[in-house]
Amino acid sequence: MRVSELVAETGIPLATVKYYLREGLLMPGAATSATRSEYDDRHVHRLALVKALSGLGLPIPKIKVILELIDAPSSSLFDSLGEAIGALPPYVSSDGDFPRAEAVLADLGQVYDPSYVGVAQLESALRAAEEVGIPMTDDRLRAYGKHIMGLAEADVAAMPKATADAIEYAVLGTAIYEPVIAAMRRLAHQDIAAKKLHGERQGPDVR
Amino acid sequence: MRVSELVAETGIPLATVKYYLREGLLMPGAATSATRSEYDDRHVHRLALVKALSGLGLPIPKIKVILELIDAPSSSLFDSLGEAIGALPPYVSSDGDFPRAEAVLADLGQVYDPSYVGVAQLESALRAAEEVGIPMTDDRLRAYGKHIMGLAEADVAAMPKATADAIEYAVLGTAIYEPVIAAMRRLAHQDIAAKKLHGERQGPDVR
Repeated sequence: MRVSELVAETGIPLATVKYYLREGLLMPGAATSATRSEYDDRHVHRLALVKALSGLGLPIPKIKVILELIDAPSSSLFDSLGEAIGALPPYVSSDGDFPRAEAVLADLGQVYDPSYVGVAQLESALRAAEEVGIPMTDDRLRAYGKHIMGLAEADVAAMPKATADAIEYAVLGTAIYEPVIAAMRRLAHQDIAAKKLHGERQGPDVR
Repeated sequence: MRVSELVAETGIPLATVKYYLREGLLMPGAATSATRSEYDDRHVHRLALVKALSGLGLPIPKIKVILELIDAPSSSLFDSLGEAIGALPPYVSSDGDFPRAEAVLADLGQVYDPSYVGVAQLESALRAAEEVGIPMTDDRLRAYGKHIMGLAEADVAAMPKATADAIEYAVLGTAIYEPVIAAMRRLAHQDIAAKKLHGERQGPDVR
């Protein structure tokens, strides 16, 4: 297809498509003349992925990291997944020690790469909870650990086999389901509150 | 204590304290002369709360909604909790229909207030997953529902009894533990991947 058809198919403006081509986020089409290139489904797919990652708030250099891993994964899928997920927000400093996160992971008996940015993200999140005066208790961390492992198992069970697909799925699934989990947790709180506070409020306006 | 001691105690600059007083986010001290007021632990506590909410990215009007509910809760704790949590980000439109969210809540058998912003947040999150090409399957939603209910039960079990404390805890706990859950989920993925991809990578650099 021509670039105009690519624009029509993806709904991404021509100027943006050209920008992605210049930045190397979209691979070039096959040149059919000095001024014309031919694009195909791979370009449609790549544009949808770039749009999704951009919509998740990733800056261009972080999107590039992910695309490069999809196009040329490390020899180890484990490493590729870690690097690709590490390109997602939140962006926290990986310098320093992570005593809170390491204590939690040791207590839960989880295997982890100490240089994985997830360790720094957990440290930062646990420190923030302390700072607002509601540190995570050991009991709650264990309850969380068990249920979050259940969520993660459902995620990994649905991971595609092919490496490039697995990386793309892991990146999108990690980020896109976080707001789903956050909203479902708020609604679960409401369900429990409604049942616990039964009698305090009832009626046709609560389903 | 004097305002200078309040500044020293909380680490919040004087200009910010004065701004919070003008905006009504901090209740006035007891006037001891024409130019001097006396502050106490309630002011220290309130400043810590405003700082925490501000750090979570809440704009001033949303912080006010929460403080007003803490100072003068609705007659129903259920309603107060819903309104206070509704002041947290993400801010999504509550207009329109929520077919995806309502189908999920019906399938999970959860009680909910249809006007609660959590319903709109879930709808928005589910729509985003569809748009990037990885819609939630029914199986995954059920697995998520079970484990997220487990997280929520741990949260509600630790909720203080007094209404003002309960509202404050619910607001801070809802927001501050979301990044903890997100980081723990990423680390749970890594734990599962390490065990699943066993043999592909092993050694002293993975704990």
